[in-house]
Formats: sequence, C-alpha cells, structure tokens
Amino acid sequence: MIDRITAGRASGPAVIVGPGDDAAVVAMPDARVVVTTDMLVQGRHFCTDWSTPQQIGGKAIAQNGADVAAMGARPQGYVVALGCPPDTPLAVLDALNDGMTREAARSGAGIVGGDLVQSPEIVVSVTALGDLEGRAPVLRSGARVGDVVAVAGTLGRSAAGMAVLEAGLSGFDDLVALHCWPQPQYSAGVAAAVAGATAMCDVSDGLLADLGHIADASGVGIDLARERIEDARVFEAGTALGVDPSAWLLTGGEDHALVATFPPDTVLPEGWRLIGRVDGGVGVRVDGAPWPGAAGWQSWEVS
Amino acid sequence: MIDRITAGRASGPAVIVGPGDDAAVVAMPDARVVVTTDMLVQGRHFCTDWSTPQQIGGKAIAQNGADVAAMGARPQGYVVALGCPPDTPLAVLDALNDGMTREAARSGAGIVGGDLVQSPEIVVSVTALGDLEGRAPVLRSGARVGDVVAVAGTLGRSAAGMAVLEAGLSGFDDLVALHCWPQPQYSAGVAAAVAGATAMCDVSDGLLADLGHIADASGVGIDLARERIEDARVFEAGTALGVDPSAWLLTGGEDHALVATFPPDTVLPEGWRLIGRVDGGVGVRVDGAPWPGAAGWQSWEVS
Repeated sequence: MIDRITAGRASGPAVIVGPGDDAAVVAMPDARVVVTTDMLVQGRHFCTDWSTPQQIGGKAIAQNGADVAAMGARPQGYVVALGCPPDTPLAVLDALNDGMTREAARSGAGIVGGDLVQSPEIVVSVTALGDLEGRAPVLRSGARVGDVVAVAGTLGRSAAGMAVLEAGLSGFDDLVALHCWPQPQYSAGVAAAVAGATAMCDVSDGLLADLGHIADASGVGIDLARERIEDARVFEAGTALGVDPSAWLLTGGEDHALVATFPPDTVLPEGWRLIGRVDGGVGVRVDGAPWPGAAGWQSWEVS
Repeated sequence: MIDRITAGRASGPAVIVGPGDDAAVVAMPDARVVVTTDMLVQGRHFCTDWSTPQQIGGKAIAQNGADVAAMGARPQGYVVALGCPPDTPLAVLDALNDGMTREAARSGAGIVGGDLVQSPEIVVSVTALGDLEGRAPVLRSGARVGDVVAVAGTLGRSAAGMAVLEAGLSGFDDLVALHCWPQPQYSAGVAAAVAGATAMCDVSDGLLADLGHIADASGVGIDLARERIEDARVFEAGTALGVDPSAWLLTGGEDHALVATFPPDTVLPEGWRLIGRVDGGVGVRVDGAPWPGAAGWQSWEVS
C-alpha cells in the first residue's frame, strides 16, 4: 500500500531524499524551517457523507500549507501520518492520496514521507514545512497603530457552503466545494512578506477571531469597514436561505484566507484588498463598534 | 489546555519561534531538513493498561527521534498532533506531555509546536526534524561488500519485555520499562555518520528485517555472527519463561537500536559493536545460513 501511494508522487524540486528510508531530506535554503501540524479526525473534522476522500485529503494539506504561508514562508514539503480501518477500500486511500498530492502541488511542494497505520476511524495528521527565503517570519505580534488591514482570499464562503450543505440547498455547489476543500492563496503569503507585512495569520477560526489574535498579540485595536467585507456569492446564499450573511463573513472559519497588516503607505500586493485599520483601541471592531454576534467573539475569547 | 501544555516547555536552543503563532520556526543550519513522522493509536500501538501516559509520550518521541538519528542527523525539534477523548483526565495529558518533553530533551531537542483535537481514542502523531550538520545523509542503500555491520543499543530487550508483560512475570521491570519507553542512542547516529558509516537504519521491525532493508536497498548480502548477538538480561528472561531468546534478539522490534555498515578499516565509534559482515550474497544470514524463524523474515518479505 505504501509503495502504491508513493509511486504516483512527484515529490517536488526541494526533495533530496524521498520516501523509503528512515526519514526524508528536504532542502531548506534559508537554514530555518517553518513547521506546523494539524490533525483531522473522521466524524469530528470531516464526515465521509459530505466530503469525498479527495476533498478530505486536499483540506488536510490546505490548512497546514495556509499556516506556512501565513508566516510569509513558501511550502517546501509535507509529511502525512494516516490512520484508517483495515477494511478501508483501496479506492478511498487512492483518492485521499490524490487530493493530498494535488493540493501539495498547488502549494508548490510535494509529499515527502509519511506513515500508514490502523485506527478505528480515519485520522489524517499533516505536517507542513516551509522556507523563509531569507525574510523574517511574519508573526501575529507585529501590527502597529496606523497600519492598514488587508485580506487575500475569500471570506464566509466556507461557512455559507456548510450552511447550504446542512439545509440540503442546491445551486451553490461552488460554495460547498470550497467548504470541503479550501483553496488558500499560498503565494499571497510570500507576496505580503515581501511587501513588508507587519503581522499575518490565516483565517481558520473566523475573521474577527483571527484578527483578534493579531490585535491581542500586538497590543493594538483593529477597526474593520463592514462595506469592504462583502461577497456577492455569500450574499446570494444568505438570500436563498433567508439569513443575514454577516456572521458567515465575520465569524465563519475554514476559508483559510490570509489576513495581514501593512504599514500605511504600502502598495498592497496583487490579490490583497483593504478591509480596515489598526488603531490604539482594544480588540476588533466593525465600523467602530464591537460586533454583537456571539460566535466569533466566543471563539476569540476562549482561544 | 494548550497554554498549560506549552507553558512547561523548554523548547531548546534551535527554536526561533515557538508555540503560539501559525507555525514554529526552527534553525536548520545545514540548509537541509531531515523529517519523519509516526502515528501511535491507542489499542493498536499501545494500551493504557500496560503503559503509563509518560511512557506512551516518551515512546512516541523516541521512535521518531531514532529515525532522525538513523540518517546521521541531530534532532532539532518535534511537532506533536494529539487526539484524545473529551473526558481524558488532565493528569493524563500532563503525563503524556511530560514523557514527550523528557524524551525530546534526552535527544537534545524540544517540542516546538502541535495540535490538540478531539478523537474517540488517544492518537499521538509526532514529526521529528533533524539537522545534518554538513554531512551527507546515511541512507539504507550505501552498504558495500566487505563492510562491517555494527549495532548501537540493545537488541531483543523490548520483545523480551513484552513477553514478560504478557506472561505476568515479575523480576524484569527493566525490560518491561524498555519495551514501554525505548531509549535510542541518538548521539550514536551522529557518531556513526562522522565515522563514515555507509548505510544505517534503526531497528524497529527486528534486526533481521531491518538489516534486510539495508541488504535489499544496497544490493548486498549480510552475514551475522550469532555469538556476537547476545544479551545476558534477555537470556535470563528467556530462561525464566522457558523459551529460546534467539527470536527476541533477531526478530524483536522496537528497541530502536541503530544498525549500520562501516568500511572494513573503520575504528567503530563508542557505543557501537561489531555483529557481522557485508558480502556478495543475498539477504541476511546468521552464521552463514538463513534464519529458520518466521517472524523476522515474514516482516521483511512484506515490508
């Protein structure tokens, strides 16, 4: 099975030693490695009724790759530990592997090694490695009063997609697909670092929650302009379901957009759009006032 | 809980950015990173009746660190993804973390980041990172006819410990402890690489199986001297249980000893002992003949 999985892999240009030895060896020209890990458990982080194995594999890579990009680093390789029941069909493992391989390639890297074990349910644990290419890592703690706040990637589409799935609504397959397999803009992370981003993170818990991490770590406040946080497609889904899409936009996680702060005179790189400003206040506000919705704030308070 | 776990961590000298951001940043002076991952699942790789949480944590780190050492690299850091049921006692998580932190420190590195999620049973997925310090990685494929075969660390003690556990025999707590928490000789891997080892791997599937990987990858044969593969403590356990300890010594895994081949004129580094020779034959033999026991060969054939 391991031979079967590794056979189709284009490991990527950074791979010096690929699968088959005690460990892999990956080029890390910067002499510092950016590393992050996430575990996805069947029934908790995904269910096989809603997501295809390809999507589960793609999502597992995407959420780790986005964390590397959010440091301003370029993904260089992934290792994957996969647990699954002994009766898991070969086609499911092939499809999981296919989704992982595709998303890794989309991020510019390969899957360089892994482990395959038995477990009662499917568990996917991915570790992503990234190279800083000589730049300082972009932390959450660097935002300064006067900076602008910008985002790269979609907001609220994943949450809208999940709501559409739950309601059994048709006509929004694009949102459902994005919920099941987010598409981070990896190169936007590098572009932000090159442009001088002062702080950055990926939006996994929701815009307000994740900007809350930046505000908290940097000791600043952030004020967002509600009118700049719009998405016509999310609005359409809200209309179809008869709900206000604001909560999806502001508190929906898992789009894995990147959000960053830049010095006020920065020409934002391609793919980035202005959504707010850093000020001397506390926490994250929308049009000058705390957001009344609970979910985002709750998540922010406890995290 | 994450704050609690990360609070006590001495992350180690290589850590540039520790837990708390999107990703960690670890020094990798060689500009290549050695990376390996293993997943341990409750009920499959450990059971909480036989192993304490400390031992489970220690073992999870040890088996990954041993893979890094088996490349001739020095462990630089670990990331840990941990899944556990929501009712897992805090003391269990603390003890797991304690075992991981201790073993990481024993290998000269720290735990630099991780993930904590809910899962129906305890799942520990560790990724280890290592630095090559300017040396070539020691692969499985470099053994040459005429090389000597040497081992660093114990053989058969883990298997003997498991047999003792299963039999409920007392008086061999040291072997049981080693089974539950193997103690790889990390620095022996670096010493072997410095001394010019031509091939190396760690003994996780059993000596014959793992040397079989080297023989296979290198296109050589290996002949072991049975009299050189002895362990008085393993012999005692065999006597107490009334069984021949040979199978433990030759086919027992999980000691995470290191086994390597060296050019014939090499002065073996401290901690390494000669056990055989590389020749032009096929596979691994003991005193010139194939080993009749099934387990090691079986494992070797399928892996």
